[in-house]
Amino acid sequence: MTEFFTLESPNQALQTLKDQLTGPLESEAIPSAEALNRTLSTNITSPSDLPAFPRSTMDGYAVRAEDTYGATPNMPAYLSLAGEIHMGTTPSFKLEAAQAALIHTGGMLPENADAVIMIENTQTSREDEIEIFNQVSVGENILNVGEDVTKGSEVIPSGSILRPQDIGALMALGITSVHVTKCPVVGLISTGDEVVHPDSNITTGQVRDINSYSLSALVQSAGGIPKRYGIIKDDFEAVQEAADIGSDECDILVIAAGSSVSARDITADVINNLGEPGVLIHGITVKPGKPTILAVAKNKPIFGLPGNPVSAMVVARLLLVPTIKFLSGANFDNQVSSVISAELTHNIPSIAGREDHVPVLIKTIDGKMLAEPVFGKSNLIFTLVRSTGSVIVPINSNGFIQGSKVQVHLY
Amino acid sequence: MTEFFTLESPNQALQTLKDQLTGPLESEAIPSAEALNRTLSTNITSPSDLPAFPRSTMDGYAVRAEDTYGATPNMPAYLSLAGEIHMGTTPSFKLEAAQAALIHTGGMLPENADAVIMIENTQTSREDEIEIFNQVSVGENILNVGEDVTKGSEVIPSGSILRPQDIGALMALGITSVHVTKCPVVGLISTGDEVVHPDSNITTGQVRDINSYSLSALVQSAGGIPKRYGIIKDDFEAVQEAADIGSDECDILVIAAGSSVSARDITADVINNLGEPGVLIHGITVKPGKPTILAVAKNKPIFGLPGNPVSAMVVARLLLVPTIKFLSGANFDNQVSSVISAELTHNIPSIAGREDHVPVLIKTIDGKMLAEPVFGKSNLIFTLVRSTGSVIVPINSNGFIQGSKVQVHLY
Repeated sequence: MTEFFTLESPNQALQTLKDQLTGPLESEAIPSAEALNRTLSTNITSPSDLPAFPRSTMDGYAVRAEDTYGATPNMPAYLSLAGEIHMGTTPSFKLEAAQAALIHTGGMLPENADAVIMIENTQTSREDEIEIFNQVSVGENILNVGEDVTKGSEVIPSGSILRPQDIGALMALGITSVHVTKCPVVGLISTGDEVVHPDSNITTGQVRDINSYSLSALVQSAGGIPKRYGIIKDDFEAVQEAADIGSDECDILVIAAGSSVSARDITADVINNLGEPGVLIHGITVKPGKPTILAVAKNKPIFGLPGNPVSAMVVARLLLVPTIKFLSGANFDNQVSSVISAELTHNIPSIAGREDHVPVLIKTIDGKMLAEPVFGKSNLIFTLVRSTGSVIVPINSNGFIQGSKVQVHLY
Repeated sequence: MTEFFTLESPNQALQTLKDQLTGPLESEAIPSAEALNRTLSTNITSPSDLPAFPRSTMDGYAVRAEDTYGATPNMPAYLSLAGEIHMGTTPSFKLEAAQAALIHTGGMLPENADAVIMIENTQTSREDEIEIFNQVSVGENILNVGEDVTKGSEVIPSGSILRPQDIGALMALGITSVHVTKCPVVGLISTGDEVVHPDSNITTGQVRDINSYSLSALVQSAGGIPKRYGIIKDDFEAVQEAADIGSDECDILVIAAGSSVSARDITADVINNLGEPGVLIHGITVKPGKPTILAVAKNKPIFGLPGNPVSAMVVARLLLVPTIKFLSGANFDNQVSSVISAELTHNIPSIAGREDHVPVLIKTIDGKMLAEPVFGKSNLIFTLVRSTGSVIVPINSNGFIQGSKVQVHLY
């Protein structure tokens, strides 16, 4: 009954898993307006220069810079007014020597104009004539054609997860449809004779299903589509049937095993029946989360997570989320996780040889960010509720002492 | 035509706005399973102890700790086997002196048992008898009733934005429906004679609508519901009509003004017509983003954002997002923004008297996090695309020098 694991570190484990997968899912075309948080599956190249015409960045007068040279408040330059440039139109005139044209922020420069002087530095001297109190240099207060992006340049690389500004930038280029990788569908099975639906009135000995819901929400926030298959009893045939259906219908299958050893044994056997290559890793050097199974069957990642809901969440953040991102085609090099630096309020002891994930509560006192460990047995789901993030004690460390600066991974 | 602003700092401006609002929107009951990222509008109190019964945290034998005292591998204690405790059931027997019961992780302790000894530290000596190689103390390897949460205790406060672990924890308590604050509906109007729909082929002088889409996506990621009213020409009556409808149908109205001064003037007039108290702030000490209007009409926040898409995004992150969170009832004290610390690769000069938001690209080189300023005029939307976040130069600072540690606000 004792389990013998070949333990791997989480990074090794993730690499072992990825090595067995062919890569991201297929792509689909969707409207750019609906592409927030989706992952680009092609490089975006600009179809045109942006801006497409020279624009003013100020309210003022379009001028030929040379006509303003030497102008001061005491010795203003006098320019005759050639007209006004209306927003959204191409100027109907060009600028001759010693001429200026009224222009608004974002307006198009007339031909021959090469600078804009701010309205505050001018004064109308008489009808159709203005005084200029400052000189401006060539290019001042204007945006040149292609200054934002030039036609044909690569502007957003494949693998980018689209943010609000990226959506806006696509629209600026008239790219109203994009190819993105499909969102991975993640099947979730909870097993355990003791596990009942959250709606149930429990009798002693029973616990409500946490994992189906915490993992669904985590999958959702990682950009996957959760699909819950409910609670299956610790019975080999029943779990196998659910796993067969789940691995068939989904891109990733997660079985959160009952917490008993027999439930874990069933999970491993069931997963090995799903297809080649089967179980790759049985056990990782993470606390909490050691009894984790990673497998691949028919090019789909299969996870056997510990039934303990805290362990399941820690491992899911560590391995399931990156796997969802991998199948989504997200370019990891461009990702920066949300980590903040804080001062530890208490010692965190650890044992070398495993990576410890310790929940902490962030408190700001006198403008100083403090991380207070939320101690409690790793089975207690509310330790995660009471915490803001976790401190990871590396595999070969004995812990951190009070007062040291630690990195807190927000969740 | 020159504008005279009474400039306020962003924090002052936000406070001025909030002072004029009565508070969060009304609440609604939704299934807990669909409550990810929603804001709780009531305190959650635990209806029961969790765990509801004493549980084993290990596979092993439930024992009375005193029966194991003094046991060593050389001098084992012998206990008779009272039975096996099946998962999900209440044990049908109680433990008598010198008895043990086979128990699985998560199983319920029988009456009189007060500890669990790990299976690895035992051996079956003969049928119905086991040898114990270690002593265990009272409480070892068990979870006591209420050790996670006790009945009647407040477990998740009103104002919390629900995370995956919170959803799981609600389910653990059988709370399958929660009261959350309604999501604010944010109306978005783009104005400008030069602005055309992103699908349009543009002629020189025209630009495509960026703000409607970048702001929609930002609203969405902040937990609001965007409602786009399209592009309105710089015509007082047309903008007024759209603003009347938008402020009527939505909880927040945002007008991204055309970039010309006349468009900005129209915006201010239109907003003042929407209701009392009207425009509160006209101009904030932020670069980019100075020509921002904050108003309240009929208890609804109204924003006049600069037409420049970079300024609009900076101000929206700074003021619109917190306003959405405020109307959602989110408890700001519990929020930690995603900020990372990095070393600056170039000087960032600034001018005291305004808060500068400088886009930076985060690069990790030799494990070191570097922040490289993405310089470019503040009108260039792709400066936001090329950056990972922004460094905020405080209002009374002249900037940061190369090599200094800066806080990068991720976006």
